[in-house]
Amino acid sequence: MIEKLAIIGVGLIGGSLARALRAAGAVGEIIGCGRAWPNLERALALGVIDHATDDPARAVSGADMVFVAVPLGVMAEVFNAIKDKLAPNAVVTDGGSVKTSVIKDAAAAFGTIPINLVPGHPVAGTEHSGVEASFAELYQGRRVILTPLPATQPRAIQLVERMWLACGAEVIQMAPECHDEILAATSHLPHVLAFSLVDMLTQMREHNEIFRYAAGGFRDFSRIASSNPIMWRDICMANRETLRVTLRKFTKNLEDLTAALDDPTGDILLQTFERAKAARDCYLDKIS
Amino acid sequence: MIEKLAIIGVGLIGGSLARALRAAGAVGEIIGCGRAWPNLERALALGVIDHATDDPARAVSGADMVFVAVPLGVMAEVFNAIKDKLAPNAVVTDGGSVKTSVIKDAAAAFGTIPINLVPGHPVAGTEHSGVEASFAELYQGRRVILTPLPATQPRAIQLVERMWLACGAEVIQMAPECHDEILAATSHLPHVLAFSLVDMLTQMREHNEIFRYAAGGFRDFSRIASSNPIMWRDICMANRETLRVTLRKFTKNLEDLTAALDDPTGDILLQTFERAKAARDCYLDKIS
Repeated sequence: MIEKLAIIGVGLIGGSLARALRAAGAVGEIIGCGRAWPNLERALALGVIDHATDDPARAVSGADMVFVAVPLGVMAEVFNAIKDKLAPNAVVTDGGSVKTSVIKDAAAAFGTIPINLVPGHPVAGTEHSGVEASFAELYQGRRVILTPLPATQPRAIQLVERMWLACGAEVIQMAPECHDEILAATSHLPHVLAFSLVDMLTQMREHNEIFRYAAGGFRDFSRIASSNPIMWRDICMANRETLRVTLRKFTKNLEDLTAALDDPTGDILLQTFERAKAARDCYLDKIS
Repeated sequence: MIEKLAIIGVGLIGGSLARALRAAGAVGEIIGCGRAWPNLERALALGVIDHATDDPARAVSGADMVFVAVPLGVMAEVFNAIKDKLAPNAVVTDGGSVKTSVIKDAAAAFGTIPINLVPGHPVAGTEHSGVEASFAELYQGRRVILTPLPATQPRAIQLVERMWLACGAEVIQMAPECHDEILAATSHLPHVLAFSLVDMLTQMREHNEIFRYAAGGFRDFSRIASSNPIMWRDICMANRETLRVTLRKFTKNLEDLTAALDDPTGDILLQTFERAKAARDCYLDKIS
């Protein structure tokens, strides 16, 4: 049971955590902190949070659990704002999509990586943003990846794990670098591809008309291009070293497929498509 | 009213046309033709077709409307098989995703492009194949693009247009080359990207585990990678000249975005993502 939870950034991720913990009866008081007052007022009106403030230092005062769910570009600023106000036993965790950068930001702000900081990433979301888009079931059956460091307090890890289990999530642990490599491939790259494709279409001659000819497959494929641009710029910048390697690998594969168009048998295309279909059908089996 | 409709290839596209016309009371008798007997028997059992044959020449005998819905790689073979058996007034149309290649195949088979051939493309589909996946509502509110040539009989165009209107579709006309360029960008390229991404993931070290960490966005993004590999090899090969240009343009954009990771402001990424989000949100408005 969390007595006082401070959520810095009451959007889709932070708001959904609040709703889920409330629904599970796993939290006492919830303080929401953000910079956009209309969003905070909406969060209060919806009953997602009990109190609102725009000051991170005040938000964390007396909290036994702090969840930081802001764009990665603001993490350092938030850590700096809260570092001297945390209760001695307070556990801090976050929802950032890149883990090595959060750890680096924390080390810079705190002078060392706090032993009660448990870097985490709930692998869940929709293309919508803001507290209005949040819902209690967002994390049910989803995976939350924690990337604690060797010095991280076992007690802190356990408390964060319990928090996510109460939301219906499955919790796993891995090294931060491993997380960032996997997410670069399964999430960051797909977002860059979707944004890039839609942007290319807007530059075609017939761009006013072109979306009219898109079928259902395009609608699904491009859904993630409706995601928050600032959040995704921050993710790409925070994971840029790994994303660069992943992008280069993908570009190379695409060049190979382009060259394969010259082979009149089409065998390379067919083999690639067959491998992909088999893997995706198998993946669908696993998660359904 | 179509009296006798021959459908060569009773899969998702052909089967859905049959079901839709039947539901609309816009067709008399339906002859289904295919190479896989289990699928034809299923089509008969489901009442999608009235008669079945594996001989295209027999299927078109006496038909006033012929719909060819086979993979593009088999179009030439089908045209050759039916060319001497068509009734004098029979109208022929198809569901191929590339139009210049179908026209080329027809010209080669018939010696000239038949004036009663109306090349067409219902821009609809799912990632599933076979008559089992077909449904009467597939074309409702979707667009069918017809690409008639200057010599095409107006009567033939009108009959094909009426057929699709009866299925609830919107019918538009454009030049075959224009169709192939637009579809390369909105459909063929996204499929290649999705296949290529999923294939890349299968080659990563942790590939047995990696799909477990994929969020909902990946599920939607990669859905089209579960499409029929043979059909998509054929589409890519049939539209390879245009697809090559589109792929190179996309690859160039991707290289630019990769280079943009070096800019510490992240401005180029943000601008690209913002343009894409605005376009997609606007597109969603248009079709919802």
